[in-house]
Amino acid sequence: MKRDIRIALDVMGGDHGAPVVLKAAAIALERRPDVEFLLFGDETVMAPLLAGFPALQAKSRVRHCEVAVKMTDKPSQALRAGRRSSSMWQAIEAVKKGEADCAVSAGNTGALMAMAKVCLRTMSQIERPAIAAMWPTLRGESIVLDVGATIGADAEHLIDLAIMGAAMARIVFDIDSPTVGLLNVGVEEIKGIEEVKAAGRVLRETALPNLHYHGFVEGDDLGKGTVDVFVTEGFTGNIALKTAEGTAKQISQWMRDAMSHGWLSRLGYLLARDAFRVLRDKMDPGRVNGGVFLGLDGVVIKSHGGANAEGVAGAIEVGYDMVRQELLGKIRDMIAQANEARAPTAAPAVT
Amino acid sequence: MKRDIRIALDVMGGDHGAPVVLKAAAIALERRPDVEFLLFGDETVMAPLLAGFPALQAKSRVRHCEVAVKMTDKPSQALRAGRRSSSMWQAIEAVKKGEADCAVSAGNTGALMAMAKVCLRTMSQIERPAIAAMWPTLRGESIVLDVGATIGADAEHLIDLAIMGAAMARIVFDIDSPTVGLLNVGVEEIKGIEEVKAAGRVLRETALPNLHYHGFVEGDDLGKGTVDVFVTEGFTGNIALKTAEGTAKQISQWMRDAMSHGWLSRLGYLLARDAFRVLRDKMDPGRVNGGVFLGLDGVVIKSHGGANAEGVAGAIEVGYDMVRQELLGKIRDMIAQANEARAPTAAPAVT
Repeated sequence: MKRDIRIALDVMGGDHGAPVVLKAAAIALERRPDVEFLLFGDETVMAPLLAGFPALQAKSRVRHCEVAVKMTDKPSQALRAGRRSSSMWQAIEAVKKGEADCAVSAGNTGALMAMAKVCLRTMSQIERPAIAAMWPTLRGESIVLDVGATIGADAEHLIDLAIMGAAMARIVFDIDSPTVGLLNVGVEEIKGIEEVKAAGRVLRETALPNLHYHGFVEGDDLGKGTVDVFVTEGFTGNIALKTAEGTAKQISQWMRDAMSHGWLSRLGYLLARDAFRVLRDKMDPGRVNGGVFLGLDGVVIKSHGGANAEGVAGAIEVGYDMVRQELLGKIRDMIAQANEARAPTAAPAVT
Repeated sequence: MKRDIRIALDVMGGDHGAPVVLKAAAIALERRPDVEFLLFGDETVMAPLLAGFPALQAKSRVRHCEVAVKMTDKPSQALRAGRRSSSMWQAIEAVKKGEADCAVSAGNTGALMAMAKVCLRTMSQIERPAIAAMWPTLRGESIVLDVGATIGADAEHLIDLAIMGAAMARIVFDIDSPTVGLLNVGVEEIKGIEEVKAAGRVLRETALPNLHYHGFVEGDDLGKGTVDVFVTEGFTGNIALKTAEGTAKQISQWMRDAMSHGWLSRLGYLLARDAFRVLRDKMDPGRVNGGVFLGLDGVVIKSHGGANAEGVAGAIEVGYDMVRQELLGKIRDMIAQANEARAPTAAPAVT
């Protein structure tokens, strides 16, 4: 039998804090019994809550931390005030020390990435880390990266993103060779910025066993789910993600307004409310969860700050899966394969 | 009395071609009686259609053109095959020659911009042109630019975009001092890419009578309509626009699926169908119309290729308003004001 997966959980993170995070851990434990937790946070807050989840308590060890990083802290502030002492830092450090396999936090994204970079460092052969988001599509879900870990990307970084995204997609979607597209302003090879074109040339010419390069994709391909993995630089990725979230909220508001206008519409809404519930669940930002930090020497999962217990539980389960299916090993293997595949023809001209 | 506004219309453009474009002209004429048309296209196609719109016929002159630019032509192909001879080129050239005040086309965007650049040239003191889109928001509409005319932008180009967008907003929204935001990955001054930060510094420090600089805005501010004018570089702007369109289509599809599932939902849908119609109209891409080309020495309006007659009529009316309210004069004045405001403190450090 395989050993348990050990999750280091930042209990103080997220908009709703310890009550939601501990409930999430209890939910995740029900669905993944071979998990155990290291719980980082204020002991006096956690102890009474934990008493309500005896099964979780039995599989957890509590580590008291004095400091909780605030959702509004800037990364530099968080590092100054919370390095070593905060629940967020200590959860990450547990991975560094080998006490845990994976850290999960619903806290402040910028602080979490800054601490993860300082504490875990980037993997060898990866220049910069990335954040990969799960994006709900008409086909199901796709992975989009980078959604804002780093700003600006040369062709080599885009290729790293493609490889890391494909490694993650193999686990999340349980497929051998995920399709990967580069986000661009048109699908023709001559379109777009130099870095994207150069990365496209390399991906097209490099045969990799576990990555099927699709070509360029556009903004509206995201909603369609045209590929399993959408690759883009962090500035554009962040704006695309927030634009989609904003559009979904805008349409929800319009829908509410439309449905409350006139008694026929209100009656119609009542009759169709199951359908609306399905729709609302699909559009719920809490569902889009488990942003995975890629390119670090350790597995770190960011849960949506506003997620409910079900959402945070989803993020914990993503962390579990990434460890169980050996995300880091898959990335290392694929990077090595890519280097080998590119070696014989000398270094391609990449700007 | 003011003289008529003369619109040069590319009748062959758009997915639906001459029948829709001529109907659009007839609609626009009803609402703006002080307009006259130069109609560019295949005479044998236009003549029988025009016979159905006697009022339009009375205010139009037909110019026969042999060539129609295809929606699938690349800009270079369109220029090679359609320079001088195409309805698109000739409509633009009519503006150049002073025979028309404004050119309107529902044709291929890339070809239209390429021809407009070659034929009209950019305004003095503007380096590169831009495309401004009307973006439906919870507050009504905002202007977003550049949505894909040019890729990459330094701080000076972003400042030009802010000024041109504000000039357009003064006309579209009939306000003295529109609010302008720079699209970024966070609202704090230290966030984002250098070009955006540098443009933000200049806009903050330069007092302009007709531009209220709001600061940085994020992707989800688009749907909220936080500012009147959203400024971003063309690569990101194009991806944001298509991402929002894709998200709207995705949610429409989910809504259709949800509403067709079970007889209660179907009945609810029937009762609420007026509300759904309002919603669908709001989400209709045909409504988001009148992409305005800015920075050229002439007014050119791009209508959505898939727009219906009402949509193309909207684009014609946008063109009318831009001419009547002197868009080009407003841009020139604001650029001059900005140069003056920036002169005393010497050239600010802009990367």
